[in-house]
Amino acid sequence: MSDAQPQTSQRSDVDQLLDAWRTLEPQEQLERFAQLDRESAVQLLQGLTVPAQAALLIALPPGERRIWLRLLAPDDAADVIQHAPPERRAELIELLDDITRSEVTALLAYVEDEAGGLMNTRFARVRPDMRVAEALRYLRRQAVERTEAIYYAYVLGPEQELMGVISFKELLLAPDDQLIVDIMHRDVLSVPETMDQEEIARVIAQRNLLAVPVVDSGGRIKGIVTIDDVVDVLAEEATEDIQKLGGMEALDLPYWRTSFVTLVRKRAGWLVVLFLGEMLTATAMARFEADIARAVVLAVFIPLIISSGGNSGSQATTLVVRAMALGEVRLHELFRVFRRELAAGVALGAILGTIGMTRVMLWQQLFGSYGEHASLLAMTVALSVVAVVAWGALAGALLPFALRRFKFDPASASAPLVATLVDVSGLVIYFNVAQWLLRGTLL
Amino acid sequence: MSDAQPQTSQRSDVDQLLDAWRTLEPQEQLERFAQLDRESAVQLLQGLTVPAQAALLIALPPGERRIWLRLLAPDDAADVIQHAPPERRAELIELLDDITRSEVTALLAYVEDEAGGLMNTRFARVRPDMRVAEALRYLRRQAVERTEAIYYAYVLGPEQELMGVISFKELLLAPDDQLIVDIMHRDVLSVPETMDQEEIARVIAQRNLLAVPVVDSGGRIKGIVTIDDVVDVLAEEATEDIQKLGGMEALDLPYWRTSFVTLVRKRAGWLVVLFLGEMLTATAMARFEADIARAVVLAVFIPLIISSGGNSGSQATTLVVRAMALGEVRLHELFRVFRRELAAGVALGAILGTIGMTRVMLWQQLFGSYGEHASLLAMTVALSVVAVVAWGALAGALLPFALRRFKFDPASASAPLVATLVDVSGLVIYFNVAQWLLRGTLL
Repeated sequence: MSDAQPQTSQRSDVDQLLDAWRTLEPQEQLERFAQLDRESAVQLLQGLTVPAQAALLIALPPGERRIWLRLLAPDDAADVIQHAPPERRAELIELLDDITRSEVTALLAYVEDEAGGLMNTRFARVRPDMRVAEALRYLRRQAVERTEAIYYAYVLGPEQELMGVISFKELLLAPDDQLIVDIMHRDVLSVPETMDQEEIARVIAQRNLLAVPVVDSGGRIKGIVTIDDVVDVLAEEATEDIQKLGGMEALDLPYWRTSFVTLVRKRAGWLVVLFLGEMLTATAMARFEADIARAVVLAVFIPLIISSGGNSGSQATTLVVRAMALGEVRLHELFRVFRRELAAGVALGAILGTIGMTRVMLWQQLFGSYGEHASLLAMTVALSVVAVVAWGALAGALLPFALRRFKFDPASASAPLVATLVDVSGLVIYFNVAQWLLRGTLL
Repeated sequence: MSDAQPQTSQRSDVDQLLDAWRTLEPQEQLERFAQLDRESAVQLLQGLTVPAQAALLIALPPGERRIWLRLLAPDDAADVIQHAPPERRAELIELLDDITRSEVTALLAYVEDEAGGLMNTRFARVRPDMRVAEALRYLRRQAVERTEAIYYAYVLGPEQELMGVISFKELLLAPDDQLIVDIMHRDVLSVPETMDQEEIARVIAQRNLLAVPVVDSGGRIKGIVTIDDVVDVLAEEATEDIQKLGGMEALDLPYWRTSFVTLVRKRAGWLVVLFLGEMLTATAMARFEADIARAVVLAVFIPLIISSGGNSGSQATTLVVRAMALGEVRLHELFRVFRRELAAGVALGAILGTIGMTRVMLWQQLFGSYGEHASLLAMTVALSVVAVVAWGALAGALLPFALRRFKFDPASASAPLVATLVDVSGLVIYFNVAQWLLRGTLL
């Protein structure tokens, strides 16, 4: 404990300077920084906000700039570079040593949708050999410069490796003289830098965490992702999925903030694809034109039959896409889903087929609409509905699996896409059933 | 670093068990739970869904049941009790200690989907006349009994009325001898007990809060809703909306935990409604049977034209329903949406109509498919597509307004419902355009 004293007083010099930093002129900042001994200067630099770090580094003479930039951890250097004016960035990256340069370049390249792009590098850290009272004082000082709320303090080893975690509440509850290493939790749930933000949101939600640390392959902490970022991610991802399921590209912006041109463009793409796909119905029907000419009544039931398949497909695809997004259904469960949706599709088809058959027979009784072969027609409609509805459920459920298997977003299996697929195949099913049942009578 | 190894495996144990949980038999669940060390068991219990928590607790031997139930925060205990079979509830309530029992009983009286049903009754409270050091000591003592993490301390008057709030970080930063009343924020955002959970989620997400206090009509604090509860609410509400937009009732349970009978029932309702609605297409087409008999080629384009309207309607309804759920589009903006969607619909219709016209003319050039009146047919298809796509966009956008106006859930304006509406009207549009353009030639 005794050798902690000088550090404490030294640190509070730095603390005072940090408090006053914002009020100083750039020239004054440079002078005060130059007066500090090396250890204090390191502490000061590390205590500054990222924009303040960037401003200070750029103001330093080139020789010193190299020294101090190299002193920063790669993630901090990356943050600083990201906050520097764009025209200065390449020059700053050049100042780094080879290893750090590649690390920083990697950090700068984090995909925005991944842990690395979402994480915050300002988190509360303590050392394992601190005592509780010391850790609390230390955190109290850290809180000045750290803008995010503090939920957990991460216990880091000399190489920034994540050794444990302790919640703020636990720190408050623990006796002052207890060692952090004795009360910290060693089983820290952490996520890799490349984890997708949707997956992180799931982890945080499932485990009821307020924040999760992001670690590299060496177990070193790179940052934390906090629950308030996750709330935004969840809403964003749900919006994206909903818009895709509706048969369009995700807008990325709120409805009113999307320009008219963008609104039309994001919808036109899929509409054109679906229209081209649906053209196959015209091709398919041209092949059955002779049948229609012989029995025009067959045309009357086309929309009813093919739309039933589309509706049942829309339900199935919606269910499976959402269940996949929530992690409830996984890729290896294809066969289980296949069986379940086939059974559900047949059951639903039987219900609708019965209604369809009743409709035909009832109209025949009431208006004599369908002539002498009405019951054969009723049978054709009923059987087609069963087959098309079951096929719709299957196609709707399996399309997300196929998309996911080939690394596409399962949510692209939109209700309209499934409906289009089922429209084309539904026509073929209907006319084949008709040819089989009505050959020699109506056809 | 060496002692990091066992942690990694321990952590993934709980995660793996959580993932596999629903596939385990009840007896297996009990065995696996009994094998866990206490900390892992706590993590598992807290990671389970509420119905799974209820099932596990009921399966435990009575002595253990008491221990684990008492480990839950009052709001979580209330949730579990609500999800237990009705005949077991009284018995579970009996297991609680006196204080928690009265809290839970009060909570059980609230509607599940409202602030009162979502809130936690254990929150950090301080008095306005405390000094910072005293408040911190006081909170440290409170933390012992309060299981939830502490983000904010609420400043309460003698009648429990909410006077202000101060964040934990601010408390840590303030000088020890400052009075709470001098540093607290007086403009506290609070919500009434009856506010819908979706609205609360929106408030918390929009304002980047970690918790929001729930107050009664007299301004007295009743509990707090925390951001981690909101994460679950957001996911739940998105799932409900997605399933409704897919044309079915919301499942309420994960896909695999929904029984086959329930799965079919929740889908059959809307499918039957849609099927009955789609029967109007058969009625409409019967009126145009004579036209089809004269020009069978007209039938060939029916699926193409009506599905374009359904697709454009699906996009519009999806956009508007989601924008309403996020509070981006409000009821009084009906006319603005009307104009925008009409314009977008016409633009999209023009794109598709051009493609449709090209298709007809191309087939005519290549195969001579459509005889001497091909260009008139092409015009009929193009004009119908423009009208049907524009009408689809309008109908899809306005249906959620109509539903909301009459107090239905806008998300019931599902893609399949809009498609059905547009199919029927699309047929009427198509045949009227055909009669107008083709009278005297094909018709």
